[in-house]
Amino acid sequence: MPVCKFAFADAILQRSPGQDGEVYAGNVVDQRHGAPVTIGFGRYGPEQSLTETMAVDDIMVIIEGRLSVSTEAGTVTAGPGEIIHMPKGERVIIHSHEQGAVTAYVTYPHWQEAL
Amino acid sequence: MPVCKFAFADAILQRSPGQDGEVYAGNVVDQRHGAPVTIGFGRYGPEQSLTETMAVDDIMVIIEGRLSVSTEAGTVTAGPGEIIHMPKGERVIIHSHEQGAVTAYVTYPHWQEAL
Repeated sequence: MPVCKFAFADAILQRSPGQDGEVYAGNVVDQRHGAPVTIGFGRYGPEQSLTETMAVDDIMVIIEGRLSVSTEAGTVTAGPGEIIHMPKGERVIIHSHEQGAVTAYVTYPHWQEAL
Repeated sequence: MPVCKFAFADAILQRSPGQDGEVYAGNVVDQRHGAPVTIGFGRYGPEQSLTETMAVDDIMVIIEGRLSVSTEAGTVTAGPGEIIHMPKGERVIIHSHEQGAVTAYVTYPHWQEAL
């Protein structure tokens, strides 16, 4: 596959599986493209919360707003230009704040195949 | 490994291998940590150019500035909040513009082991 550039507008956002809040994800590269990783953009409305056990390693780069991720070990919070790494197997609660958040993400392996 | 948050200041920047320009990379997660991917931050000075054949899949999220990536197929340019995916095997020229650039990157597999 060729070198490609992606903007937020390229992502077709869909509600994240297993929750009914304002949390959306849209892959721009995934298992359909032959790459080893899934790449996409996420959008979180204000004060949303998502609990999951990570089926894959997931790296989020915060583009707008702020996100917190809580585990048994504590809570980390990141803002624009910062990275949160959620390793496979971790039980996490992802929580957005009053301004919501936009993220870019990379997962290994493909999260849709690991559900 | 635990869920971790990383900021640009966490990266220990080193000159990218094989070039003597103002192009730096600093891993925050790599083969030492047991994760399947390498995660880090990059910094490009103004009007720098880096030519390489991709030994790994490399996903860059532009945090500041702009970067262009040229291949035989053409050139893509990305700014803040946008993603460039450089698949393994592609021959690329990465070029920064007058304002330089800061990136977050994820590679699969570990780029330092693939050199």
